[in-house]
Amino acid sequence: MTKMNRIVLASRPTGAPQDENFRLETAEMPEPGEGEILVQVAYMSLDPYMRGRMDDVKSYAQPVPIGGTMEAGGIGKVLKSNHPNFAPGDYAVGRFGWADHGVIKGDLAFKWDPDMAPLSAGLGVLGMPGFTAWAGITAYGKLKEGETLVVGAATGPVGSMVGQLAKQAGLRAIGVAGGAEKCRMAVETFGFDACIDHRGKDARAMRDALAAECPKGIDVYFENVGGPTLGGVLPLMNLHGRIIVCGMIAWYNGAEDETAGFPTGKLWRMILVNRLTVQGLLQTDHVARFPEFIKEVAPKVKSGEIAYVEDVAEGLENAPKAFMSLLKGGNTGKQVVKISDA
Amino acid sequence: MTKMNRIVLASRPTGAPQDENFRLETAEMPEPGEGEILVQVAYMSLDPYMRGRMDDVKSYAQPVPIGGTMEAGGIGKVLKSNHPNFAPGDYAVGRFGWADHGVIKGDLAFKWDPDMAPLSAGLGVLGMPGFTAWAGITAYGKLKEGETLVVGAATGPVGSMVGQLAKQAGLRAIGVAGGAEKCRMAVETFGFDACIDHRGKDARAMRDALAAECPKGIDVYFENVGGPTLGGVLPLMNLHGRIIVCGMIAWYNGAEDETAGFPTGKLWRMILVNRLTVQGLLQTDHVARFPEFIKEVAPKVKSGEIAYVEDVAEGLENAPKAFMSLLKGGNTGKQVVKISDA
Repeated sequence: MTKMNRIVLASRPTGAPQDENFRLETAEMPEPGEGEILVQVAYMSLDPYMRGRMDDVKSYAQPVPIGGTMEAGGIGKVLKSNHPNFAPGDYAVGRFGWADHGVIKGDLAFKWDPDMAPLSAGLGVLGMPGFTAWAGITAYGKLKEGETLVVGAATGPVGSMVGQLAKQAGLRAIGVAGGAEKCRMAVETFGFDACIDHRGKDARAMRDALAAECPKGIDVYFENVGGPTLGGVLPLMNLHGRIIVCGMIAWYNGAEDETAGFPTGKLWRMILVNRLTVQGLLQTDHVARFPEFIKEVAPKVKSGEIAYVEDVAEGLENAPKAFMSLLKGGNTGKQVVKISDA
Repeated sequence: MTKMNRIVLASRPTGAPQDENFRLETAEMPEPGEGEILVQVAYMSLDPYMRGRMDDVKSYAQPVPIGGTMEAGGIGKVLKSNHPNFAPGDYAVGRFGWADHGVIKGDLAFKWDPDMAPLSAGLGVLGMPGFTAWAGITAYGKLKEGETLVVGAATGPVGSMVGQLAKQAGLRAIGVAGGAEKCRMAVETFGFDACIDHRGKDARAMRDALAAECPKGIDVYFENVGGPTLGGVLPLMNLHGRIIVCGMIAWYNGAEDETAGFPTGKLWRMILVNRLTVQGLLQTDHVARFPEFIKEVAPKVKSGEIAYVEDVAEGLENAPKAFMSLLKGGNTGKQVVKISDA
C-alpha cells in the first residue's frame, strides 16, 4: 500500500455538525521518522469531545485546523517501528486521527496486550473513557458506602464505568439516559439501581424524577451531560456533596454568549449552602495513573465483573455519520468505528 | 436591671428588608441555667448572612421564626456564670442575638483576652469574618507565590483579610468594591495591588476591568458577592484555578425560581476546560482550627501587620438601619453596633 485514507475538517459547523463539515481524502502513506511507529488502524474511537475540537475557541486543546485530519484515538497493528518499545506485529493505542493509517511517536503510544480483551476495548472500557471514569471517581469522588451517586449518559463508556464503580463501592447508583431501551440496559447490564429517561424533561421534571429515586438526596454527581439534568441535580445535592465535571454534551452544540447566563443565585448558592465541591476533570491530568487503572480494571473486564457495551460502525467513510448520531445520543454503548482487520 | 432589650423579626421581607420587618421589644432579664452564662453585650456584629435567616427557606441554618430574636454574634462582659470557664468580669464572644443581654451555654462561648485587641475586633478581624477568610484560604486556597487572587467586598472584614493573606503569601491581589473611596481604602489600607469599582458594571464590563488588572489571569477567586463580579471572573480563571464560595451578597435579596437559570453552558464549561475546583465554604466546618487562627493572626493584628477597619453604629435601636445599609454596601469596613460600655 502506498496510499492511506483520512477524514479532514472541511468547514466549521454552526450548531450540530453536518455532512459538508467533513471530507474523505486520500494521501501518501507516511513513513515513520526517528522514534516513530506506523500503525494500521483496526478501530478508531468516536467521542463527544471531538465536537469541541471543531470550533475555533479556547479549550483544553487546540482546535482542528480547516483541512486538518479530525482527531481521534485508535488501536491497531504496528507495521513499521523506529521505537525500541514496538516491533512490527505489536498492537498500539494512540492518536492516529480519523484515518486508516497513522504515524505517531512511540513515546506517545500505549502498548496493548491482545490477551487482555478484544482490541476495541482499548478504546472504551480499558481506554480513555474507562480511565476518565476511574480517575475522576478515585481522585475526587470520595465514595462512601450508603451514599447516592447520579451519572448521566449512563450506558456510555464513562457513565457505565462510573455506575459500576459506585455499585462496587456500596453506593446507590442512579443513571440518566435517553430512552427506555438505554434505561433498561443501565439497570440490567450495568447494575444501576434505577435509570431516568431524560427525554422530554426540563430541569424541574428531572428534579422530581431524581428526587423520587434519591430519597436520601445526592452525594456525588458525575457530570457528563449538562443541560436539564444538571439543573435537576443541583437542588438535591447533599451537604459536602461532590460534583465532578467531566463533560457537557448537552451544551457542545451551543453558541451562547460567553458572559451571558452565568450561574444565577439560588442554584449557585447551593454550592455554598451545602459546601459542595465542584471539580473539573480531564483525564490527561491523571495519566501517570493509567498503569494502575489497567492493573486494577483489566482483570475485572476479563472476569465479567465490569461489563461493557460497544456500538460498532463499519468503515472510515461512515465515521461522520456515526459521529453526528453520537452527538444526538443515537448510539448505544461505546461508539467505535471498525477500520480494518489489522 | 430586671429588663433587657432585644430586636425581633416582626415579618419576613420580600426583597430588601424594611423598617417594619423589625421590632424593638423589652423583656425580662434572663437568668443563666446550669452551665450557662449571662452576658452584658458591648458590641454586636452585623453580617450579610443574617439576611438569609430572615427567609423561610432551607439553608445551612434554621430561619429566625416570626417574633424570634434576630440572630447575631456579640462580645460582652460576663455578669453571672454557672460555667467553670467563666467568672463575672470575664469577656465572652458568643451568639447573643440582637440584644443588650444574653444567656448562652458557656461551652458555646469563646473567652476573649482583652489584652489581645479592642473588644470589637472579636467580631471582625479576630472573629467569625476574619476566621472565615483564614479558614477558606488555608484549607482551599492553595496559594502559590506569583499567582493572582481576586476577592469582592474587598474592604469588608472577610475580603480585607483574604487580600492581606494573599499579599503575605506573595500573590497579586485584586479587590472589587463599591465606590472610589472603598477602592482607595483597599489599596492604601489593605495593600491590594488594585481595586475595581463594580458600580455600574455588568458581567462583561467586570470581565474587561478584571482582565486589565489580571494580565496572567485569575488563579484564586474568593466569592463574596456573586452577581456580575462572578460573571466577569469566570472567563478569566486559569488552569487548575480555585473558587471558594463564601457568600453571594448580590443575590441575598433575590427571589429566583429554584430551577430557573441554572448554570448555562459556556461558563459552567469553564470549570471543565480549566479543571477548576469550586468549593463551598462555611466557617463552622472548620471551627476546630479557631485556636490556631487566633494564635497565628492575633499577634499580627497587634503589630499592625494585619490591618482592619470598623464601621460602628451606636445603640441597639439603630441596628436595623445599619443592617439595611450594610446590605446595600453602605458601610465601610466591618459593621458592628455598640450596645453598651460593658
